[in-house]
Amino acid sequence: MGLEKIKLMSLYTDFRKDVAYIEKELERSVQSSSPIVRQASLHLLKAGGKRIRPIFVILAAQFGNYSLEKAAKVAVSLELIHMASLVHDDVIDDSDMRRGLETVKAKWNNRVAMYAGDFIFSRALTSIGSIEKEAVHRILAETMLEICKGEIIQIDFQRQTDQGMRDYLQRIKRKTALLLASSCELGALSADADAETVRKLRRYGYFTGMAFQIVDDILDITSTDAELGKPAGSDLLNGHITLPILYIKDDAEFRPYMERAFAGNMLESDRQNMLRYIRQSDAIDKAQHVSDLYLEKALKELDGLPNGKSKKALIQIADFIGQRKY
Amino acid sequence: MGLEKIKLMSLYTDFRKDVAYIEKELERSVQSSSPIVRQASLHLLKAGGKRIRPIFVILAAQFGNYSLEKAAKVAVSLELIHMASLVHDDVIDDSDMRRGLETVKAKWNNRVAMYAGDFIFSRALTSIGSIEKEAVHRILAETMLEICKGEIIQIDFQRQTDQGMRDYLQRIKRKTALLLASSCELGALSADADAETVRKLRRYGYFTGMAFQIVDDILDITSTDAELGKPAGSDLLNGHITLPILYIKDDAEFRPYMERAFAGNMLESDRQNMLRYIRQSDAIDKAQHVSDLYLEKALKELDGLPNGKSKKALIQIADFIGQRKY
Repeated sequence: MGLEKIKLMSLYTDFRKDVAYIEKELERSVQSSSPIVRQASLHLLKAGGKRIRPIFVILAAQFGNYSLEKAAKVAVSLELIHMASLVHDDVIDDSDMRRGLETVKAKWNNRVAMYAGDFIFSRALTSIGSIEKEAVHRILAETMLEICKGEIIQIDFQRQTDQGMRDYLQRIKRKTALLLASSCELGALSADADAETVRKLRRYGYFTGMAFQIVDDILDITSTDAELGKPAGSDLLNGHITLPILYIKDDAEFRPYMERAFAGNMLESDRQNMLRYIRQSDAIDKAQHVSDLYLEKALKELDGLPNGKSKKALIQIADFIGQRKY
Repeated sequence: MGLEKIKLMSLYTDFRKDVAYIEKELERSVQSSSPIVRQASLHLLKAGGKRIRPIFVILAAQFGNYSLEKAAKVAVSLELIHMASLVHDDVIDDSDMRRGLETVKAKWNNRVAMYAGDFIFSRALTSIGSIEKEAVHRILAETMLEICKGEIIQIDFQRQTDQGMRDYLQRIKRKTALLLASSCELGALSADADAETVRKLRRYGYFTGMAFQIVDDILDITSTDAELGKPAGSDLLNGHITLPILYIKDDAEFRPYMERAFAGNMLESDRQNMLRYIRQSDAIDKAQHVSDLYLEKALKELDGLPNGKSKKALIQIADFIGQRKY
């Protein structure tokens, strides 16, 4: 387990048993009679991640009539959709490493990665299939649709230097914020929380999601390769322009770095120089400021919700996102 | 429009308006703000296909309280799932041509094909999302899961000469029969047909689906390249063992052909000789016989269902499958 996950888990000790239950359900859900699929899915599951989506589902469901069994179905579904999109992303990005482990497409191949993604996608639908609430299915379908659109638009924008803040925000909304928003919304909705609470929690999830992705994009530049489990600057090497880069991309000294990164002919020393150049600029602080604004908005949504262990945990998670270092 | 489609359409003239309505809804459903996705999806849609899934939905729904609007939602969903799996298959099989048109992965690339598949998949869920019946969502989720499993198992079996009838039947069940079975079942179910009718129609769909795929696999050998819109014998060249091949694979004179096809070093003259050898054997007749048995079973399921235009069309479709030549 990564250090970050341990730190995050300390924020919701009250719900540790629930998270452990969901972890078991996740493992059970990717069992398959095909050895390749089972291995690929378990590999992916073991690679971990922070399980933020399941945690959001649990915490949001606390604001209604909490049932662990119901919340677990929703949580498993959302985490699996997240996992499926990661596998497909690795094919697209041609990534060999994720979170310090080999990716499915590197350990097996692109075909296995594609179908493992489809398989996990389908498992996600099976898990949520028994929740008898039309709105749940509608919201899930729409969320998946937007995520897919995002993945495709990401292709349109790859290696495009002519793009602005709006393009970036649209992209991270689809890449991260929508699924976190839906995690909160579906958690609350499946527990029959009242409409205003559902709305507030959805917005909390959305704003923390925006902040989370901005911080992720900052860390891609400020962290070491070891902390990331992959080369720092991978986003740029893959042709993705993130928020810090938006603030520096028209800098005359930076531009040649970006062009070489996009052209795929960057030496190791070049990459180090590029990272140093961005780190010393004000681009990181500017990006961090935007993340902070989103976190403020997120915390504001929690005003008016009943105090308790769950609200406390949601506040701590927002704080954690603002401060996380890897 | 292909000749085959015209012939098939003549079987259900009574439902031509309904099919046309669904065609419009299909087009509407793949609209997207991303130009690449819109173009890729429309390209796929225009490539046509026989729309057997939508037709089965309409015909099955006639046995309940028919609503075109409801049936169309189910039909669009099932046809889109079929389309999505085709796009992903083309990536796996590395196919450049399908139905005489370039595939998405050939016209654009593998990345576009993968995400266009995901996008269409999600659209399928959106289309069916508003049907308020838990069983519908459960059946759809399970069907998609089995299809995915099938696609993965297909990889396990590719270029495996040591396999039998059971493996083949399992494969075509997942590849084709399950989705046709679900088309009939969901069509009937969404129109509130009684349980016994739903069960009979599902089995009709399943048996015709098995026959349909066997005939498809036969045509891959007996048709000309022009009729197929791709090289005859493609299944073998892609390492897939179909029913006719099962009957001939241990023939000492045939085996070297198969080995060269699987190894990917087959000359054009070699391919022609291989096809001629299979066509002259009794493998085709044996396979055709299995298909006929399935069609008999399919027709038997229709006994006891009320006579009418819909039942007549279902009988004619089964007959058509038994006789189709391309």
